[in-house]
Amino acid sequence: MPEIRKDPIVDRWVIISTERGKRPQDFPSPVKRIKKGSCPFCAGNESMTPPEILAVRPEGTSPNQTGWTLRVVENKYPALTLGGAVDRVGEGMFDKMNGVGTHEVIIESPDHEMDLELLSERRVEDCLWAFRKRILDLKNDPRFRYILIFKNHGDSAGASLEHTHCQLVALPIVPELVSDELAGSKRHHDYKERCIFCDMIAQEQWDGKRIVVQNEKFVTLCPYAPRFPFETWLLPRYHSARFESNGGETFPQLAEIFKETLLRMRMALNVPPYNFVIHTAPLQGNHEDHFHWHIEIMPKLTRQAGFEQGTGFYINPVLPEEAADVLRKVKL
Amino acid sequence: MPEIRKDPIVDRWVIISTERGKRPQDFPSPVKRIKKGSCPFCAGNESMTPPEILAVRPEGTSPNQTGWTLRVVENKYPALTLGGAVDRVGEGMFDKMNGVGTHEVIIESPDHEMDLELLSERRVEDCLWAFRKRILDLKNDPRFRYILIFKNHGDSAGASLEHTHCQLVALPIVPELVSDELAGSKRHHDYKERCIFCDMIAQEQWDGKRIVVQNEKFVTLCPYAPRFPFETWLLPRYHSARFESNGGETFPQLAEIFKETLLRMRMALNVPPYNFVIHTAPLQGNHEDHFHWHIEIMPKLTRQAGFEQGTGFYINPVLPEEAADVLRKVKL
Repeated sequence: MPEIRKDPIVDRWVIISTERGKRPQDFPSPVKRIKKGSCPFCAGNESMTPPEILAVRPEGTSPNQTGWTLRVVENKYPALTLGGAVDRVGEGMFDKMNGVGTHEVIIESPDHEMDLELLSERRVEDCLWAFRKRILDLKNDPRFRYILIFKNHGDSAGASLEHTHCQLVALPIVPELVSDELAGSKRHHDYKERCIFCDMIAQEQWDGKRIVVQNEKFVTLCPYAPRFPFETWLLPRYHSARFESNGGETFPQLAEIFKETLLRMRMALNVPPYNFVIHTAPLQGNHEDHFHWHIEIMPKLTRQAGFEQGTGFYINPVLPEEAADVLRKVKL
Repeated sequence: MPEIRKDPIVDRWVIISTERGKRPQDFPSPVKRIKKGSCPFCAGNESMTPPEILAVRPEGTSPNQTGWTLRVVENKYPALTLGGAVDRVGEGMFDKMNGVGTHEVIIESPDHEMDLELLSERRVEDCLWAFRKRILDLKNDPRFRYILIFKNHGDSAGASLEHTHCQLVALPIVPELVSDELAGSKRHHDYKERCIFCDMIAQEQWDGKRIVVQNEKFVTLCPYAPRFPFETWLLPRYHSARFESNGGETFPQLAEIFKETLLRMRMALNVPPYNFVIHTAPLQGNHEDHFHWHIEIMPKLTRQAGFEQGTGFYINPVLPEEAADVLRKVKL
């Protein structure tokens, strides 16, 4: 059973997941460059993964057979495990709990050569629906406090398999950066009775210099204080705290702008490795007034070094106004 | 002039340093594999760096000539610049200030093939004295609130030059992770009237399973909730808030254990890339009771991916008890 331990000084939680464990000689670990034929995420290799939890497949095809266009399966090397209670315990002055959670993989295409941004809008929308369905299902488990959905794309962004996929982790705690966002947006709301993200969108639209693209319901922008070059956020222009409370009203527009944003990044930066993370309200508690869900997209263009690790203070060599301008000018 | 901008949501400060700027096509940037002869940090190439601020050199040799064993020079591509006022200003709802600061390089050896842990204890001690002297000098500038000393060693740890060196950055703000440590240690002190680091050292010494090595005045241990595999902290066993208040009483012992710790890591992990960061109290304010300076050493064995970036929540595949055991068993 993995453990989740808390640093007593900065209240930072860490997963110690030795099931994925490595001996010293196993570092650094190369990305598995698995060939098309032997990739567990490819069509025809369904038996190489745990059984599917969810799939988009034509009527008449059976689970765990070919024919699907999207599949959700459990991660074969999960960072957290589903069985057991959370059990918070002390170890002298230290705190820990069991690593209870789930770790799932969303395979967005049966095609080994495909990338998310190259799929049709309809297929990108299928991914959004899969995220929503999995959140709504996992929300029924009272042990979970947060569901994190993210993508590691490309070697240096931490992908361990090159076949396009997203990951979902259900956690028994609210992670630190989300807590910080909640605290910051709550403080703003207590003071001004407005959502800080709505305020930010309004200000960004006023001069437009950090806006990349927008449609009726969504906007993509380079944030004022980005940690990374070409860091880009995708936000709903309407106030909404939770990703999963969205659906047919907005997902077509979200799929459109999400694909376009990733495509602009792909073309401007020559197919960069990237990460994206969906920031949404925790499963419990009332965050409806002050939190505003969004997607943070971070191309991996620089290495993070001691300075950043030692300070939580980032050095970014690219102005967000310039990054937005470059992304805006891409000819699609 | 670089700018320092604040994310309004989580109060995270970011340096936007376009002087080191890169166009999209410049990413990702390879490490400069500069040959021995043309390396600006090598003996004989003193004219390739800005003039020396400090050096350890035999009497009779002139500044910026050969003969030195340690040199401190300004970074040729600084993240922050020395001239001007800090000037905090608002941009609508956003906050920024000028990127006032210094960025210096401590070259620990004139020899291109040398590494810090291979130097003699006496030469490691010279580095400690250089850190102290630079802090005491920069402390006189009232614009600075924090001085960060760190090392990026090896390609994937973010070193841009392979010749062994440390870096020093003086900042007009206290970085976020240090603020978090200060807040956490203050909270503990308010409640228990004891230093949380001293408490932690006492608990670690009780069963010893996370201790790597100790001498009379210092201890090296793998912390209870490490973010990274083989993350190791070096702490004084006596209470002390500031690195720069140490000197001849303790530096010989610090040099000894610092060298030994890095050497154990080098041998256990096959010359890994690594970062270390000195955590010390901010220049201003009274943190003497509750803060405890220390060095955090982080070998770079795993890639950080979307999960960590999106959450501030780390997945670590190695138990600190096992890491400590591996490091303890290295035969020197």
